[in-house]
Parts: sequence; C-alpha cells; structure tokens
Amino acid sequence: MSDTLADFCYELAVANRILAHEGVIDAFGHVSVRHPDDPGRYFLSRSRSPELVEPDDILEFDLESQPVKPPTVQLYAERVIHGEIYKMRPDVVAVCHHHAPAIMPFCISGDPIVPVFHLGASMGAVAPFWDSRDEFGDTNLLVVKPAEGASLARALGKHSMVLMRRHGATVVGTSLRELVFRATYSCDNARYLSEAMRLGNFCPLTPGEIEMAQAIYQLPTAQSRAWEYWTTRLAKCGGMPSRTSAVAKEEAAAKLAKKPVKSKGGKRE
Amino acid sequence: MSDTLADFCYELAVANRILAHEGVIDAFGHVSVRHPDDPGRYFLSRSRSPELVEPDDILEFDLESQPVKPPTVQLYAERVIHGEIYKMRPDVVAVCHHHAPAIMPFCISGDPIVPVFHLGASMGAVAPFWDSRDEFGDTNLLVVKPAEGASLARALGKHSMVLMRRHGATVVGTSLRELVFRATYSCDNARYLSEAMRLGNFCPLTPGEIEMAQAIYQLPTAQSRAWEYWTTRLAKCGGMPSRTSAVAKEEAAAKLAKKPVKSKGGKRE
Amino acid sequence: MSDTLADFCYELAVANRILAHEGVIDAFGHVSVRHPDDPGRYFLSRSRSPELVEPDDILEFDLESQPVKPPTVQLYAERVIHGEIYKMRPDVVAVCHHHAPAIMPFCISGDPIVPVFHLGASMGAVAPFWDSRDEFGDTNLLVVKPAEGASLARALGKHSMVLMRRHGATVVGTSLRELVFRATYSCDNARYLSEAMRLGNFCPLTPGEIEMAQAIYQLPTAQSRAWEYWTTRLAKCGGMPSRTSAVAKEEAAAKLAKKPVKSKGGKRE
Amino acid sequence: MSDTLADFCYELAVANRILAHEGVIDAFGHVSVRHPDDPGRYFLSRSRSPELVEPDDILEFDLESQPVKPPTVQLYAERVIHGEIYKMRPDVVAVCHHHAPAIMPFCISGDPIVPVFHLGASMGAVAPFWDSRDEFGDTNLLVVKPAEGASLARALGKHSMVLMRRHGATVVGTSLRELVFRATYSCDNARYLSEAMRLGNFCPLTPGEIEMAQAIYQLPTAQSRAWEYWTTRLAKCGGMPSRTSAVAKEEAAAKLAKKPVKSKGGKRE
Repeated sequence: MSDTLADFCYELAVANRILAHEGVIDAFGHVSVRHPDDPGRYFLSRSRSPELVEPDDILEFDLESQPVKPPTVQLYAERVIHGEIYKMRPDVVAVCHHHAPAIMPFCISGDPIVPVFHLGASMGAVAPFWDSRDEFGDTNLLVVKPAEGASLARALGKHSMVLMRRHGATVVGTSLRELVFRATYSCDNARYLSEAMRLGNFCPLTPGEIEMAQAIYQLPTAQSRAWEYWTTRLAKCGGMPSRTSAVAKEEAAAKLAKKPVKSKGGKRE
Repeated sequence: MSDTLADFCYELAVANRILAHEGVIDAFGHVSVRHPDDPGRYFLSRSRSPELVEPDDILEFDLESQPVKPPTVQLYAERVIHGEIYKMRPDVVAVCHHHAPAIMPFCISGDPIVPVFHLGASMGAVAPFWDSRDEFGDTNLLVVKPAEGASLARALGKHSMVLMRRHGATVVGTSLRELVFRATYSCDNARYLSEAMRLGNFCPLTPGEIEMAQAIYQLPTAQSRAWEYWTTRLAKCGGMPSRTSAVAKEEAAAKLAKKPVKSKGGKRE
Repeated sequence: MSDTLADFCYELAVANRILAHEGVIDAFGHVSVRHPDDPGRYFLSRSRSPELVEPDDILEFDLESQPVKPPTVQLYAERVIHGEIYKMRPDVVAVCHHHAPAIMPFCISGDPIVPVFHLGASMGAVAPFWDSRDEFGDTNLLVVKPAEGASLARALGKHSMVLMRRHGATVVGTSLRELVFRATYSCDNARYLSEAMRLGNFCPLTPGEIEMAQAIYQLPTAQSRAWEYWTTRLAKCGGMPSRTSAVAKEEAAAKLAKKPVKSKGGKRE
Repeated sequence: MSDTLADFCYELAVANRILAHEGVIDAFGHVSVRHPDDPGRYFLSRSRSPELVEPDDILEFDLESQPVKPPTVQLYAERVIHGEIYKMRPDVVAVCHHHAPAIMPFCISGDPIVPVFHLGASMGAVAPFWDSRDEFGDTNLLVVKPAEGASLARALGKHSMVLMRRHGATVVGTSLRELVFRATYSCDNARYLSEAMRLGNFCPLTPGEIEMAQAIYQLPTAQSRAWEYWTTRLAKCGGMPSRTSAVAKEEAAAKLAKKPVKSKGGKRE
C-alpha cells in the first residue's frame, strides 16, 4: 500500500471513530470511502465496531461488494449498501450507514426529517424513506442481498440521506469530511426538529435557504474547522487510531532489511 | 475453583460492569448466570452495585436461592428472581434484574414495550407485565419471597423480558452475552419507541421480522462484535474487574509452596 | 476539632460532591448536617460550589444561621433554609437545597411529584409546594430572611421534601446518607414520572407501598450499597475531597512539635 | 501586548472553552470581548472552534469588524454580529453567538423563551426574535453583511439576548463573566421551560422578580462562585488554554536577550 493510500485509510479510521464518538454510530453501523484512484473499488473495515476500527482493519472491495483479496476475517453483512450506492451514484465518494438515536424515532414513526436550521441544510432537502416491506416483505431488516442494496440506492436517488423504516439511515457525501459533517449535523437537525414539533409549529428552510446554506458547509473552511474540533475531542479521550499499521511496520522492516518492498503500487495491500 | 470457573466468574463480573457502564443498571439491580456444569446452581454477586463487582464477590446458589456455602457477606434480597426463573425455565442460562431509566416510564404508565427496530427484535415480541399488587397487594415492591419470585417467573412465561409495574424489568438469555445484548438493546428500543409515540404513529415489527432479526442477533458474530465494543469502552474508563482474584492468589501461593491446592474440583470456591 | 468531627466534616464534603457528581446540584445549591454533639448547631460549607467543597470549607452555625466564629469568608445567602428547618424539625439531621434539572419542570409547572416506583418511595408521599409569592410577593426568589426560611419550613411540615415554585427543592433526612439517597432517587422519580405522564396514565404508589418501601431504603444495608457506588464513581473521576485538611495538618505539626494541640474538645475549629 | 491584555485574552480563551464545555457552543459559535482601553475595538478568536481557542488565536478588530493588523489566518465569517452590537450598544462589553441545543427548538418553533426560574432571570425578560427573512429574504442564514449585523443589533435592542429564527442566539453582557453566566443559565431556563410546557401550565417570573433576581446574579460573589465551578470542571478535563502564549514566549526571549520588547503599549500584538 502506498503512503497516500495508508493516509487515506488512516483518515477513514478517524472518520469511523469520530462518528462513534459524536454519537452517530454505536456497536453497529459502518463507514466507507471510494478508492481515490479506482472508482470501481471502495474501502471499508472488516466487521468491527466503528469506534475500534484501525487502519489495518480496512479492506478493499469491488462494486459487487466482494473483497479484492480473499478475506481471512469476518466482513460486514450489509456491505451491499455501499457497493450498490457507489454503482448508482458516480458522484458519491463516501457512505455511512447508521442507527443514530436522533433519527431512529423518525424511522419508526415515519415522520419526515426536513432541514430546520442552517447547519441542518447540510443534509439537503427532506430525506426520502425506504421500507424493506415494500419490495421484500418480511425480512430480518438488514440490507444483505444485492437486490436490497440496489432498491435502497434507488430510494436514495439524488438525495444525500435516505431513512430506512424500522432500521436507520444511510448518508452519502462527495468527500469523507463532507459525509462526517452531514451525518453529524443531520442528527442535530433531527433532535431539534423533534423538540420543535412538540413545542408547537415549525417551518422548514426554503429551497433557496437550503441551497445557499449547503454551499457554505461544502467549503473546506467550514469542514476543516469542524474536523479539527472532532479530531481534538477524539484525541483528548485517547480515541485516535494507531498511526503505524501492521502493514507499515512490515514495510519498514523490509526497507531496513533492504529486501524489496512487497506491494508498492498504490493498488492494494 | 477451576480455571474454567474462574474465567466464568470473571466474565460474569464483566457483564455486571458492562450493564452498569451502558446505563442499564445503577446502584441497584443484579446479574446472574447458571452454573455451566450443574443446572441446579447459579452464580450471583454478593450484595454490591454491579459496577463494582469483582470475581471474588461472586457466590454460588442453589435454585432455592440459598448460598451453597454459609455466607459471611450481605446477599441480594431479591435473589429469588434468579432462582425461581432458573427453576421454571431450563433453557435460561443468564438473568438480569434492572431499573433502567429507559424502561421505567413504561413500568409506571403500563404502556407495552414492543420491538420497533431491527436490534429491538432481540427482546422478542411484546414484553408481558407483572404487577405485585395482583397477587400480593401492598408490598415494599421488592421480589423477596419465593412465592413472589415464582409469580414473576410465571408472568415471564416463555418471553425474554418481563416488565414489573412501578419497579423495573427482568431479562433472560440463553447465554450471558445474549443477555447483555438483549438488556442493552431493549433499552434502546424503549427509548426510540417512547420518542416515536410522541412524534406520531408507529407500527411494531411483524412476527416474521422479529423471528428473522432475532436469529441474526443470536449469532456469535453479532454478539462478539458488540462484546468487543462494550468491553473496550469499559476498559478505556478503567472499569474492568481485577483479573487475579483473592482465591486465585491463594492458589498461586499454594502452587508456589508446593502444598496441595485446596479446591480444584470445579465445583465451588 | 476532634478526629470524629474531622471525619464528620469529611463525610459532609463527600456528600456535597456526590450530589454534584450525580447531577442533583450544579454551581449553586448547598448541603448541611446537624452537629452530632450539639443539636443547636449545624455544619455547612462557606459559599462555594458543592462539587468543590473541601473539609476546610466547612463552618459551624447556630440555628439562627449565624457563624459560631466570625467568618473571614463569603457565606451562602440562603443558609436560613437550614437553620429554620433544624429549629422546627428536631428529627432532621441533614438538609439539601438544590435546583436539579429533574425537578425544575415541576417547580415551574406546579405539577405535583408523587412516588411512582419503589426507590422513589424514599421521598415519602407527594411533596408539598411552597410559593414565595404567597407571603412575600415579588422577591429575588432566594430564601434569605429568617421569616422566609421559617415559612418554607412550615410548608415542609412533616414531609421529606418541599418544592419551591420557580426555584428548586429542599430535601431533609434523618442522616446524611439518607439525605443523599433521597435527594438522588427523588430526582430519578421526577424524571420517570415526567416521561410516564407523556406516555399516558400513571398511578402512584399506595400509602402502604410507600411506607413499606421507605422502610427498606432506611436500612443501613441499602444505604451502604448506594454510598459505596457513589463514592467509587466520584473517586474514579478524581472527585474526592482532600483527606488531610489544613487544620489537621496544623494539628499534626503541633503533635510533632509536642506543643499542646489547640482545639481538642470536639466543639469547634 | 501588555501583561494586562495578555491576561485579558487568556480570560477570553477560558470563556470560549467554558461555553463549549458546558454545552452552549459546539464546533461553531464565537465569543468576543470589547477592548478594555479602547471602546472602538474588540477581541475575537481567528476562525476556530471555541473549545480549542488559545490566547494566541485572539485578534483585535475595529467596530467595522475589520482586523486591526492584516490577518494571516481565516476569520469568522459572522464577526459583524459582534461589531454591529458593540456599535449600537455602548454598555455591552462581551458578546456570544451560539446554537445551543437548549435554545434551537425555540428558534425553530418560534415559541418565546421567558424566564421561569430564579437563575433564568439572568437573561432578563422575554428574548426578542430576529428573522433573516424579514429584511433579507432567502439567505444562507449566516449574518455576514454589515446590514445583516445591524439589523440583528436593532432586534436585540435593549435586551440581553436575541433569538435568531432557524439559526441560534446572540447573548450580550456588561462583562465577560456576566456573559458566560447569562449564556449558560438562559440555556438551563430554555430546557426547563420546554419540559414545563409539556407537563402543563407555567407562569413566568414577574417583572419585579426578574429585576430583583437579576440584580443578585450581577453581583461579583455569584459570578465568582460560578466561575470557580466552571473553570475547575474545565481544568479537571484538561481543557484549560495554554498559559504561555507564543507572543509571551517571544517577549520572554526578548527580555532574556536584553533586546527591546516589541509591542509593550497595551494596544495590539
């Protein structure tokens, strides 16, 4: 793995841990990013709670959600969510599937989540719903079969987030940092909306407000500011992933021994 | 105590502490596990807050909830909850009695808790209620007498959880890890249900969804993933129990002194 | 100060910090205990947030709430709450005045808090209300004048807790540990009641249930178990007060120097 | 920068971090203070999350919200909020703009926040609303243009807090500590009000109560007590800013080298 890809996987591990630390993901849920050099591939951790993901846990998958190298570890059962969305949405660079406490009541009640404050605009207009019952009837509610993943991707359409009835949400971004921003602030938006609904009336942002506010939160300045905040909070709690991966150690040892380094093509581990 | 039993009691101490750390149990509540070699016995801590339980606090009881060895410490007053359930339900391997904030409003209002999301399916279908007033009139609300424990066990019936009016809940599992999983996610389910009820309508999982989703969460892969998550969180906060128990230390000293080790039959301390 | 009194003040500092750590008290609020040897005196910290109180901050007051020694530090403005209750209620040994988030909504809405679960019985039957407007009209809402304190004490009557409209609560106990238990679990009770009221109906404990359950929580076994839990949690966060007070250090130095120790009569610092 | 000004900026960094630590501010929001020697200037951090602000991040601005020295760092886009309020309100010494979870539901629903308990009186009478749509139609909801800042300042009028529809709140104080006190307790007030509205009725403080209670919380004793509480909590979590700034280090080095110290006029860095 090239240094660039190692940094890339490190950033993905950080993103996993931020989303866990900020209360978006718990023991379950997962986060992926498209391969920077090969749009037909994506990176995703082996089956492990996002709060614990290390760079070495991250594996490469093709868009059929098959691991590029024969796996020796357990994989997430629901990785078709990622593969099917990357297939259908060439603009999408990162995907997060979660069951955040903030959005679950809406997934259960079926009430729509609409953006109601400026940072909530990062989720775009009202998030569509997907109901596994519509096409598949009684299931275990997981999105495991390619047809289920493709159905979910169709429900997502051109949106940034899709709510899954009695299950959770799937959020997409045009970059990993945009994804983390959107996943986090759409949860805040859901919490405030839920409270406002109980206080009395509410009126959502206008289409013009959404478009203009969303443009702001796609600027690198806004995203860097939030990223510095989240990583500092994570680091304070001792939550950052290991910098030196097992693979990197092996390569370092190889360099030291002046043996040719095994996998230096930037393509796979 | 054999090494296997020592590991067993260590795992029980960890389970106590996870349930405290994840907000299911506070100063009160208790967790037990059936003896792996003798179905007529179970292990339970001496009277102590679960967050503080050490392997050495764990005692062996018969199904009449009498300690196998004369106790020198205070015992939980409500241990008949455990004994009476183990008597009536040979399939049950672990029991937790708690007063989690998530379920108390339902115990007070009498509204049923039904599974409303995939992980909530781990609790099975709607949890039955037990009301101490029905058979026993005014009491101190604790389940202390064998007749009270037996009445509660009857109310539990074949379910995985029984709600106790104005008191709390009792949850059972076919393994300690299944119990921790179920106790934790049934609390999440209660929280989301409560929020969804206020937002508007909700419709519970179907019997088919419950059955299929529950099967998933009984797989070792799902339970290991959650267990790694919970133990890592606990360890990060310095919350793990001591590995070396007083008994183990005594045995180690005995080995060192080449004296015969006292209690190596895997039966009791 | 005798060793016994020093231990006594240490325990009061611990009680202050437990109530802060468990979310009953924030920057404001205060906790006192009656002098064990002189029922006409009580101990209370100088004006300081309870989370920060050290044994050395604790001063002795008479029942007119005047400091026994001329103070060199700022005093709580509302100490008449303590003095007037100790005057009117010879059975009361400890008093806490707080503005816990759990009870404030009831103080604002005027809805009564009734015990709705077994541990909630520790607060006794429904808590009466006191409204500063009834006798005093517009005030700054603090209880500063002796007449205001006496009026509050009358409203408390024989109860264990009185709710103060638009202000907070005052809780009493026959021991410091009973007070901490009651203040903490009455907050839990308020939280669960509030949630249950929104879910639907609720029916409070019966007088018989309250009496029997309350008897249980006045047993030393229940209180020790909770005290061990709370102090362990506090200690884990580095929140325990200093063991060796400035006064104790001075005495230790005096002993070492074989000079006569100044204040060894158990009466005052 | 003089020692006095260095202390001043340190206190501003502490205020930023307290408001983050107490849940008023998250990744976004900002806090400023007027220059103690020059009412035509104010201090505000470079664009950075308040939880991370160091004394060295703090820059000086004129009332047109232009940096006094050409900046080499990113600035907050919304600093006109501060400049326009300092222009229109000579009595205001400190300003905080935030999006606290406690007040957002009110900003979304449009329900007024009125003081409902004694510490809530610190916010003064009912907070007015400002709606960006009224004068500016569809915007990105940020207050970036001088005209927007001036409009917000007019809506604030003589009040202590203004709520911004679908956006957040801006709070002012006659000192930095009063500002922190008011921003924190107005959030508590909003939370309790929201809960009380759901329980049933509520009646706000009377004008007389507000005036008298507010007078109490403007006393240095009340503010010192709370400040000690907040700084101790912050310090316990390792959250205090660095004491020795880069500038101070430079000056110390200059002194050591007996070179003339560069900027010793108390005017700017």
